[in-house]
Amino acid sequence: MTGTAAAELAGVEWRPLRVIADERGAVLHMVRADAPGFVGFGEVYFSELRPGVTKGWKLHLRMTQRLAVPVGRIRFVLFDARADSPTAGRIQICLSGRPDRYGLLIIPPGIWYGFENLGDGPALIANCADLMHDPAESRILPLDTPEIPYAWTPRKS
Amino acid sequence: MTGTAAAELAGVEWRPLRVIADERGAVLHMVRADAPGFVGFGEVYFSELRPGVTKGWKLHLRMTQRLAVPVGRIRFVLFDARADSPTAGRIQICLSGRPDRYGLLIIPPGIWYGFENLGDGPALIANCADLMHDPAESRILPLDTPEIPYAWTPRKS
Repeated sequence: MTGTAAAELAGVEWRPLRVIADERGAVLHMVRADAPGFVGFGEVYFSELRPGVTKGWKLHLRMTQRLAVPVGRIRFVLFDARADSPTAGRIQICLSGRPDRYGLLIIPPGIWYGFENLGDGPALIANCADLMHDPAESRILPLDTPEIPYAWTPRKS
Repeated sequence: MTGTAAAELAGVEWRPLRVIADERGAVLHMVRADAPGFVGFGEVYFSELRPGVTKGWKLHLRMTQRLAVPVGRIRFVLFDARADSPTAGRIQICLSGRPDRYGLLIIPPGIWYGFENLGDGPALIANCADLMHDPAESRILPLDTPEIPYAWTPRKS
């Protein structure tokens, strides 16, 4: 791995979300229309990751991602590909999920991101995005692309 | 159990949602801003249910619930408490969840609902509601209330 892992990329945010514990099963907050920085609702959908799975890389040209991990634990890796950004060319790593890192990761357009299931069971990522899915505004690259200075650790599969 | 289980309560809807299969883990649709009947975004949050758990009863005076079950399998029981409804006093039962009944259950205001985890593992319900949480517009009753003509089956716990 190269890049500056500790950097917070400009415009990227992770904030803790409330978990209301209950012996029958918790209630987990995600996004409210009055949350700071809320910019509108486009679509909410889920992405499952089987154990050992990594998905990526993906970049959106217009959509802002708002990601929570209500099941399992995920390592997100972000790469700032915005030429005009003060953090251009840098990497950010963000752990998110249960039980002690439940929160909302906000990724603005122009950032490559990938994510890896760190747990032994399935993980679930929820995305409450500001725009509806539109394949014309996203880009993908393979996990081993030379264009992003991050080497995913091979995992048992 | 009493009531007419097969009835579709007025204004209640269950519609299948798309699951995009992937050997790494599926992508699961939930709500888009252009979906039929979409009436606005208030909040998205999750409710976990441990195995054997039932939660209920709850009724909202103003909020419409849009419920999906991306993890596990849930039996929803609904009771129409609207005096002016053509289905007033009736019960509706809806199975929702994985793997073959993934869909969106829409519950308008004025309906009592409870839900039971039918599986051996934890289940997760997502609610993409049209209003933000406001305790002043909801009511609760215990599972064994005499006001609702439905007897939950005792389960191993």
